[in-house]
Amino acid sequence: MADEQPPVIEQTVGDEKGPSKNEIKKRAKEAEKAKKAAEKAAKQAELEAQKAAADVDYASELYGKAPLNQSQSRPRQTRVQIASLNPNLDGETVLLRARVQTSRAQGNKMVFLNLRQRTDSVQALLTVTPEKVSKQMVKWTASLQDESIVLVEGVVKKSPEIIKSASVGDVELHVSKIYLISGLESRLPFTVEDANRPETDVNAGEDVQYKRVLLDTRLNNRVIDLRTQTNQAVFKLQNAIGHFFRDFLDSQGFMEIHSPKLQGAATESGASVFKVNYFKGSAFLAQSPQLAKQMAIAADFERVYEIGPVFRAEDSNTHRHMTEFIGLDLEMTIEEHYHEVMELLDSLFIHMFRGLREKYSNEIDVVRKQFPADEFKWREGPEGTLKLTFKEAVDLLVEDGVAREDLDDIDTENEKRLGRLVKAKYDTDYFIIDKFPMALRPFYTMPDPEDPTLSNSYDFFMRGEEILSGAQRIHDPALLIEKMKSKGIEPESMSSYVDAFKMGCSPHGGGGIGLERVLMLFLKLNNIRRASLFPRDPKRLEP
Amino acid sequence: MADEQPPVIEQTVGDEKGPSKNEIKKRAKEAEKAKKAAEKAAKQAELEAQKAAADVDYASELYGKAPLNQSQSRPRQTRVQIASLNPNLDGETVLLRARVQTSRAQGNKMVFLNLRQRTDSVQALLTVTPEKVSKQMVKWTASLQDESIVLVEGVVKKSPEIIKSASVGDVELHVSKIYLISGLESRLPFTVEDANRPETDVNAGEDVQYKRVLLDTRLNNRVIDLRTQTNQAVFKLQNAIGHFFRDFLDSQGFMEIHSPKLQGAATESGASVFKVNYFKGSAFLAQSPQLAKQMAIAADFERVYEIGPVFRAEDSNTHRHMTEFIGLDLEMTIEEHYHEVMELLDSLFIHMFRGLREKYSNEIDVVRKQFPADEFKWREGPEGTLKLTFKEAVDLLVEDGVAREDLDDIDTENEKRLGRLVKAKYDTDYFIIDKFPMALRPFYTMPDPEDPTLSNSYDFFMRGEEILSGAQRIHDPALLIEKMKSKGIEPESMSSYVDAFKMGCSPHGGGGIGLERVLMLFLKLNNIRRASLFPRDPKRLEP
Repeated sequence: MADEQPPVIEQTVGDEKGPSKNEIKKRAKEAEKAKKAAEKAAKQAELEAQKAAADVDYASELYGKAPLNQSQSRPRQTRVQIASLNPNLDGETVLLRARVQTSRAQGNKMVFLNLRQRTDSVQALLTVTPEKVSKQMVKWTASLQDESIVLVEGVVKKSPEIIKSASVGDVELHVSKIYLISGLESRLPFTVEDANRPETDVNAGEDVQYKRVLLDTRLNNRVIDLRTQTNQAVFKLQNAIGHFFRDFLDSQGFMEIHSPKLQGAATESGASVFKVNYFKGSAFLAQSPQLAKQMAIAADFERVYEIGPVFRAEDSNTHRHMTEFIGLDLEMTIEEHYHEVMELLDSLFIHMFRGLREKYSNEIDVVRKQFPADEFKWREGPEGTLKLTFKEAVDLLVEDGVAREDLDDIDTENEKRLGRLVKAKYDTDYFIIDKFPMALRPFYTMPDPEDPTLSNSYDFFMRGEEILSGAQRIHDPALLIEKMKSKGIEPESMSSYVDAFKMGCSPHGGGGIGLERVLMLFLKLNNIRRASLFPRDPKRLEP
Repeated sequence: MADEQPPVIEQTVGDEKGPSKNEIKKRAKEAEKAKKAAEKAAKQAELEAQKAAADVDYASELYGKAPLNQSQSRPRQTRVQIASLNPNLDGETVLLRARVQTSRAQGNKMVFLNLRQRTDSVQALLTVTPEKVSKQMVKWTASLQDESIVLVEGVVKKSPEIIKSASVGDVELHVSKIYLISGLESRLPFTVEDANRPETDVNAGEDVQYKRVLLDTRLNNRVIDLRTQTNQAVFKLQNAIGHFFRDFLDSQGFMEIHSPKLQGAATESGASVFKVNYFKGSAFLAQSPQLAKQMAIAADFERVYEIGPVFRAEDSNTHRHMTEFIGLDLEMTIEEHYHEVMELLDSLFIHMFRGLREKYSNEIDVVRKQFPADEFKWREGPEGTLKLTFKEAVDLLVEDGVAREDLDDIDTENEKRLGRLVKAKYDTDYFIIDKFPMALRPFYTMPDPEDPTLSNSYDFFMRGEEILSGAQRIHDPALLIEKMKSKGIEPESMSSYVDAFKMGCSPHGGGGIGLERVLMLFLKLNNIRRASLFPRDPKRLEP
């Protein structure tokens, strides 16, 4: 920069009068003043230039909103899962897509993120670093809303101490690039952290006031609610139960079938069937695959199962009823005795329970943090599953003080009471009741060979609630018609079902399991809606 | 036996007059006569006793109608499968339950049975044998109606020559006991043998007139129709496709979900949705799990699939439309490009095709006997599956003489034509068309990044018919709302779906496969009803 010159004062030579001394002084003063002002302006300009230089965002390419992914390109960069991060990767650069569960700025030079993928989370951080992470980048990152989805590049670093707030706590991610893939366009109705909090914490807080998220609020905003670690685990377990069901039955020679849900007649029991407008006529939604799976037996399929929706038009607003749920149904021929079916179903449940305990203990633990429960107990070994007759079950309740005349049927309350009695006496959460009175069972149930008031039917229970109902079925058309009439059903109204048995049918039996009930009771979720992805009840058809 | 004595003639001694000579002669004659009569009567009695002895049914305990099985007892006798019979068991006694497919008496001393279990059959015979098989037993057995279910005890014998009419042809069963478990109370509408006959045989017969069983007759009596070897194989293959679908997706980190079929609003396209009476209001049957599976992605499930019924209220009476069918649906997040999904779907199909060919060739052969078809062909190896853009497909059709102006969409006829062109040119029955015009796809389809008239969507084809439709979906709520409006859909009517994307959602894509279409086209069954256990169409809701 050129040195600044003081202003030159013109002097005239000859007869003209020169400036007075005062004048000279005054001019010198002014010159001095101007010089100082110029110097100040120069300094100011220099400062501003420096400041401008400092504000240039050297990281502007390293963060920001990504363009909407319309599959513009395919760079084939490897992206990793948070679950795979570990201290052995110390120093390595990784790329991943995750949700921002929370972000927390420390001053304006640092921000911590909790990044989440399903049940896994890791801590990530950005610190202002010359030529790498700019202040602007930190500020932008700190402004990301919770639940935003980001693409993050960062270096894995061993964490100095275990980070308790993350499921992967032994490493953290030093972010070098961060782009917003999908932001939020609405306010969150609740945070995923609040939704994941155990009831005990919500109640215990004297110092901290946690926000309780009510079930209805959760279900109205199910997409957010499902993101909790608890729900991610619950639906992994739902998936697992279905798989164990299939695996076991496949190993026993069963075949999967798919039967129609649209029926020509209101079968089984007209009162609780949904009616459908079917072109110019009507159809009805199947209450169960009962008729179809029996017809598959009459068609020689021998052993069949089905996993599918069943529909119940019952206006029941309880913790354990839904208008649509998933039935795990099976039907098989029997050679000699219906206990062949009952025992196979028992083995099936033991297979499912063992599988859950052995392969899904992490998920069960995750759920238990939010829904504390005693471990589900069942009996194994030579004594096997507890089997009571209906009469024995009634006797147990009578011994406990229930009036026998109230026990023509065992209602929900007495079922639970029986569950507690059985747990106290036999230390099991799982048992079978056999030999129900014929009056309590549907028309297609085979009567007991000696006492026609009893039937060859059984229910299975978990924690004092029914989760399976099954029986030997009537395969003789004459007896079937007799029983239909005695229950007030016109055989003509179900002629293709009745006809199936007129063409010869093997003795057979089966059962139907409520998937969501098994899940709810195994985990003690206390409300069946928690065991259904998007539950349906008389008051809920959304989301 | 004591010798018979001639009658003693009394002689009187003394004065009394003795009998005359004539008298003596006469008496002797009478005596002789009486003797002969007695002898004759004795002979007669003997004959009658012999005859009576011969008519005593020494086998009466060894055959007959069994009492109705009500699980009276459980002797735990081992019963075998026909498929397990083989010459190594020669001389061993076995017990089995089977259908009488046919019976054929030879005189009154012998009867042949063809016994059937699902796809397996064996010849059995009864021959009158003193103290073992009685005439009465043979007569009763010969009178059994076809399709009766019997419990048979018999000795396995190597057959002198291979019995062609049975699937297990190297042994036969010498029956020692036979009981009727379930008889028929109606006339069979057709025999299982007739129902299993190839069309070629039905047409070819100059000497023999076979009975053709029409599809409608079959479907009206589906329980009988399903007993054919062909149908037993068809539904084993249906079961197999479902298993291959699951196995592959499980190996790729997918989770099975169950979404509700009852919806609060008529989604996607109001015209083809069934309306349900839902308590005091209305519900609608899901046309697909599209909305739910996308919401599962917004809920961070990352990769999901569902196997379940989908409902279409379309009054289409074609060979390939049903009002209810099984959707094999999946949805997954994408990292960079929707071809990640398209390629995964392609790998899934290759996995299914290979699995069927490698593990179910017997069943495929059984079906092919009744439904002759070229083996299903697909491309493997480095060249991989044929992928055409919609434009390339149109060009192929134009080259073949179709007017370009008729090809804004490719209709069913042109689809088939394209299938033939592709088969001729590329020798494959399986290919993909990518980049459909946006105008042909639903509102939730992601537009192409460069040409907004195109979309990131694809269809998969087998033998010239569409079996999968899929795409990248719009995960941005603003764009989604814009596209809904442009297709005349009010975003308010699907608010819980739209809201899911306002809370952040990863880029994603997926597809839906029609299970019955895959089965029909792989086997070339020519009508989708044959690939459904109990098909539903606008005119059929029974059985």
